[in-house]
Amino acid sequence: MLMKSYLQIKGALSTVQGFQTSSVHCGLKKVNKDLLLIFSEKPSCASGVFTKNLVQAAPVIISKNHLQNAQAQAIIINSGNANACTGQQGLNDALEMATKTAQLLNISTEQVLVCSTGVIGKHLDMEKIRLGISQAVQDLGQSSDQEVMEAIMTTDTFPKSSSVEITLGGKKVYLAGIAKGAGMIKPNMATMLCFLLTDVAISPNLLNLALHNAIEQSFNTITIDGDTSTNDTALILANGLANNPKLEEKNNDFSLFQEALNFVTHSLAHMIVQDGEGATKCIHLKILKARTYEEAKQIGYCIAESPLVKTALCGQRCLWGRIMAAIGYAGVSSIRSEQIDIFYGPIQVVEKGQGTEKITEAEIYLKEKEITITIDLNQGKAEAIIYTCDLSRDYVTINMAYT
Amino acid sequence: MLMKSYLQIKGALSTVQGFQTSSVHCGLKKVNKDLLLIFSEKPSCASGVFTKNLVQAAPVIISKNHLQNAQAQAIIINSGNANACTGQQGLNDALEMATKTAQLLNISTEQVLVCSTGVIGKHLDMEKIRLGISQAVQDLGQSSDQEVMEAIMTTDTFPKSSSVEITLGGKKVYLAGIAKGAGMIKPNMATMLCFLLTDVAISPNLLNLALHNAIEQSFNTITIDGDTSTNDTALILANGLANNPKLEEKNNDFSLFQEALNFVTHSLAHMIVQDGEGATKCIHLKILKARTYEEAKQIGYCIAESPLVKTALCGQRCLWGRIMAAIGYAGVSSIRSEQIDIFYGPIQVVEKGQGTEKITEAEIYLKEKEITITIDLNQGKAEAIIYTCDLSRDYVTINMAYT
Repeated sequence: MLMKSYLQIKGALSTVQGFQTSSVHCGLKKVNKDLLLIFSEKPSCASGVFTKNLVQAAPVIISKNHLQNAQAQAIIINSGNANACTGQQGLNDALEMATKTAQLLNISTEQVLVCSTGVIGKHLDMEKIRLGISQAVQDLGQSSDQEVMEAIMTTDTFPKSSSVEITLGGKKVYLAGIAKGAGMIKPNMATMLCFLLTDVAISPNLLNLALHNAIEQSFNTITIDGDTSTNDTALILANGLANNPKLEEKNNDFSLFQEALNFVTHSLAHMIVQDGEGATKCIHLKILKARTYEEAKQIGYCIAESPLVKTALCGQRCLWGRIMAAIGYAGVSSIRSEQIDIFYGPIQVVEKGQGTEKITEAEIYLKEKEITITIDLNQGKAEAIIYTCDLSRDYVTINMAYT
Repeated sequence: MLMKSYLQIKGALSTVQGFQTSSVHCGLKKVNKDLLLIFSEKPSCASGVFTKNLVQAAPVIISKNHLQNAQAQAIIINSGNANACTGQQGLNDALEMATKTAQLLNISTEQVLVCSTGVIGKHLDMEKIRLGISQAVQDLGQSSDQEVMEAIMTTDTFPKSSSVEITLGGKKVYLAGIAKGAGMIKPNMATMLCFLLTDVAISPNLLNLALHNAIEQSFNTITIDGDTSTNDTALILANGLANNPKLEEKNNDFSLFQEALNFVTHSLAHMIVQDGEGATKCIHLKILKARTYEEAKQIGYCIAESPLVKTALCGQRCLWGRIMAAIGYAGVSSIRSEQIDIFYGPIQVVEKGQGTEKITEAEIYLKEKEITITIDLNQGKAEAIIYTCDLSRDYVTINMAYT
């Protein structure tokens, strides 16, 4: 994927005018901020993309419902508890988070979106949440970017943000996003949580289109462990304060906005892979010359999710046979092993299905932190890139104990 | 699966009359036996089931070809090198293993089946193999059961055999099997290698049917890491020396034989799971009240292959939310989380999609080595059992370094 490069702006959500945030510790996590409020001073155009897991957390159901009018003015988010598999009580609790927030902000409940992340199957401690929401509304505008990001982190080891500035019709437009990731990351909306704010003026339909396009080329190309979460959500709010000529058709300005959104979401997706639980390496898997994009993606995911491939990469071993085996069981019936070439970085380790004996050179390359593996199927013209990380003992340790 | 229980016979392949074995060290592995010859004194009725991976090792291609007449008299097997992704040279080498063995045993090349297991992508050291085959033919009948099993082991930590005696038409019939497993174990012929010998008199068609039935309920219900190997092979030879009334139709005697074969293959499959690389627990996943067997199996595999589920079991933690999430992304569109019940052993941890707060009791149960998890979908009448193991730091360590 060729991508325009942008000057990253310092600062996260605070770079976009017209939005206020507030991050508090209400006690769902032992330490650190665990409740985040994002408030738009005027009603914003809004869109969301949600997990395709059929077991959906209560806040996912509520937020989808509230997005029906493509408008929102606030997002209330907690970490430490996913409010998933919590039945009718969970739905009541998620709705109450929206209602309580709406009352204190003097807006309608439907204008509030709700997100949760954390452990599955426990009811929310609503007493803590209620106090937290009151505090968050009082503190609006007083939290630093760092505190904002802390409030959505669970097993993340670093905060993830990306902000850019573009010019549309002579007006400066800002776009900023934050995300959380770590484990349970897989295609079909893999973000865990991602919040995007912009002051662009745009129609609801185009905002929705731009978000879906951006997700497809970013969060939907990454996998940590093949586990798709019950809570994955990406939301975007656009308040229009940039006063650019409103984006209402797929013109050049829309393309510029789309590219910027692609850049921000792609940057965040890449950070999520870098921060995969226990990850020591970020792997770029390029599947080239496939018959179709779908087949390329299918093979890429199959390699990316093979525990044998992932552990070999952790061990910095060039065991390309494991990649050949994964290609063979990916379910793409047309592949022919004698047509396959494999490169680790610039080093060709497989030519027409057989080893080239360049193991030593390849294993020197495998000491890098960012690894590119290119698989050339020599069958067609389609290609896909999948991003993943290796599988380390630390992944196991983290996930043996996490609650 | 209800299964008749059998008195396991002491001894492995040596319990079946009319077969001789020989196990030698030819130098493909640093230590231990690495070449096994199985010889049937008279031509046997033969059948095989092979990996469904599209990248197939050379010996798989040769053995499939030699099985076309449903007869065989010898199997030559090496460990330490899989002879996979080795191109035309690999095919030549696998064929030469058969030719050399045939010459020395004075039988035709087509009567010899070939198997290899070990690292992918390296050419066989044929000088060592040739010397090894000569030695093996000389030593026929002199190897112990222990030495026979050692020759097919790679990362296995214990040898796997199962032998039973049944009576058909007043005649004693013996059936014995050995298998190797460890990593790269997945549905669609997951055996790695399995060799079954019997003195039953049976038609080729019925032997083939019985083997496929047995594989479906044994090796095709297990998964260690979701990786399907390029070499998986199960072979059965039946020499007819038991002099039972020949099995030529699906009568009661055939059912008795099928049950015995199911028992032996199921025992071996269970041992493979127990010996999964780095495994500390054997997990029995029962998926009940599904709409179809295929959906039950699909959900079972999705749970069994979730790294988050597997690491939680390793940590003896009752994180049932990870099971709910895996059910949700298994791709079975009809599931409803509010209909799902989950039991760890006898302890119900989820009722109608919500937690029962019996975490403490469940975590005491999770200290066991053999764990049964029952998922009741409450949708239909179909069911499936999938066997797997947990994911430990040792799995990662083993597979970071394996060559």
